[in-house]
Amino acid sequence: MRESEIVELLRQVATGGAARGLADDAAVWSPPLGRELVLTHDIVAAGVHYLPGDDPSDIAWKLVAVNLSDLAAKGAVPAGVLLGLSLGDEDEAWLRRFAGGLHRVLSDHGTALWGGDTVRSGGQASLGCTAVGHVLPGSALARAGGRDGDLLFVTGTIGDAGLGLAARRGEAPGDAYLERRYRLPMPRLGFGKRLAESGAHAAMDVSDGLLIDAARMAAASGLAAEIDCKAVPLSQAAAARLPAGDTGRLAAARAGDDYEILLAAPAQAEAALRAAAATDALPLTRIGRLRLGAGLCVLGTEGRAIDPGPLGYEH
Amino acid sequence: MRESEIVELLRQVATGGAARGLADDAAVWSPPLGRELVLTHDIVAAGVHYLPGDDPSDIAWKLVAVNLSDLAAKGAVPAGVLLGLSLGDEDEAWLRRFAGGLHRVLSDHGTALWGGDTVRSGGQASLGCTAVGHVLPGSALARAGGRDGDLLFVTGTIGDAGLGLAARRGEAPGDAYLERRYRLPMPRLGFGKRLAESGAHAAMDVSDGLLIDAARMAAASGLAAEIDCKAVPLSQAAAARLPAGDTGRLAAARAGDDYEILLAAPAQAEAALRAAAATDALPLTRIGRLRLGAGLCVLGTEGRAIDPGPLGYEH
Repeated sequence: MRESEIVELLRQVATGGAARGLADDAAVWSPPLGRELVLTHDIVAAGVHYLPGDDPSDIAWKLVAVNLSDLAAKGAVPAGVLLGLSLGDEDEAWLRRFAGGLHRVLSDHGTALWGGDTVRSGGQASLGCTAVGHVLPGSALARAGGRDGDLLFVTGTIGDAGLGLAARRGEAPGDAYLERRYRLPMPRLGFGKRLAESGAHAAMDVSDGLLIDAARMAAASGLAAEIDCKAVPLSQAAAARLPAGDTGRLAAARAGDDYEILLAAPAQAEAALRAAAATDALPLTRIGRLRLGAGLCVLGTEGRAIDPGPLGYEH
Repeated sequence: MRESEIVELLRQVATGGAARGLADDAAVWSPPLGRELVLTHDIVAAGVHYLPGDDPSDIAWKLVAVNLSDLAAKGAVPAGVLLGLSLGDEDEAWLRRFAGGLHRVLSDHGTALWGGDTVRSGGQASLGCTAVGHVLPGSALARAGGRDGDLLFVTGTIGDAGLGLAARRGEAPGDAYLERRYRLPMPRLGFGKRLAESGAHAAMDVSDGLLIDAARMAAASGLAAEIDCKAVPLSQAAAARLPAGDTGRLAAARAGDDYEILLAAPAQAEAALRAAAATDALPLTRIGRLRLGAGLCVLGTEGRAIDPGPLGYEH
């Protein structure tokens, strides 16, 4: 497929006015009055973030969803995306399924395709997405907002996607639930929108592993993080597959691709945060706290600090 | 260099508040009140848009400049960019020079680095840039705005970059001016800002070749374009290198990478447009017109339609 044919395919997804039918040099969009904008750009690359044999529809979902997950962690309402598709030898069938997945993830999250660019690089595909959303001024939480004594919470369950990836690689038996968690991350936009008003101080999405991302939040906040290993929330499917005790929960907390929200909040915000999560039937688990100091401390079942080993996916 | 070290390097460029020190999941930016946003994303890929041996500082310039050129054609004031860098085996020296070029092109155009993502894809580099700017509501010109009888104008000179590329490929003797035009395109932001108030109906930047881009503007406007071959503006350096007459000017008008602005405007707007271009000491040349019909017609020196051959760079 030539670039013009790919644009024709994407035009069927880009039906909003801002996209100008993908027939102009740029998108033109009126931002909602009195809102701040939140902008993020993440790349999803073949062989790094997805397997070459993955369903192109799922790849499109993941490309957009990981960007919307960043918006969710800032409490933003998504508005539109621009895509930069650097393609290898993907054929027409691949591109049609990709466009289908794109339509699905965008319409499921009320987000428009505004524009972008496509090149044939010849190598492995590298897919970029810029997502733009908006928040009430001053309400976008930062990683750096954590305060001494804040409790750490995480949404959903941890480690599913890592186990799903292992299953898809043939390193473990197949499991539809775990593989779905790897293929189709769900940006926590509903909960994210209620984060700031619920009294949270800091938030980020968990993409490289709970431990390493908690360490990053602590570092950005100039504090130390303490994680209670036995509190790391596991799905039934993950618990059935992981070793019992600290070993299994550490493995889950080191795995990437969760796309859950990690947040720091004072104890008095806990009830409001639980109510906000319950609105979406989303589990919310207290997993530790921030305190004066630096670095990450993992407490084992005995209540003593244990060596967590490598923390997660280091780029 | 690991991703974290590359981010550290880019952090020195991303000094504005919206970037949050590149330490958060997303940028947070307050758009100017009462303005519409213009958003574009273009990729610059190794082996396609630049030569692997090109100076990384120039590559960074080009990556940002071609995106700012799209903003210029819409009359937008640039605000910030997000970068998606999919890298091959570029080393630290390469990345340092790239960051230097980035700083230069952004500071020269009053534009901030807001964020982005970096991956090591292993193949050839593919560099994406999302540029965000703003305009008075309703003032962003489209390709589709041309009207029957509008005159076509183009800024600057045409064909220089194509000749510069040939020189850099060793297909022609070196020429500092022409190669510079290939390496360091200048987004026509100053002129672009004055386009709408000067009475232009349609505008776009010339990136794939004057003829093909004029054909695209005509098609988007539902009209035919007529280009007067002898009017295609050449620099002295290009004129010295190209065959005389229609052949040379056709070659210039088929070459890509000009990043000049092509615009359609009624005859009564000509004086205001010339004044707007003169403010930047930018040549503005009338090269043809739009009329009822479809397609592109090139008039030769005899005043008769000639066969232009392939129009330009088709993706």
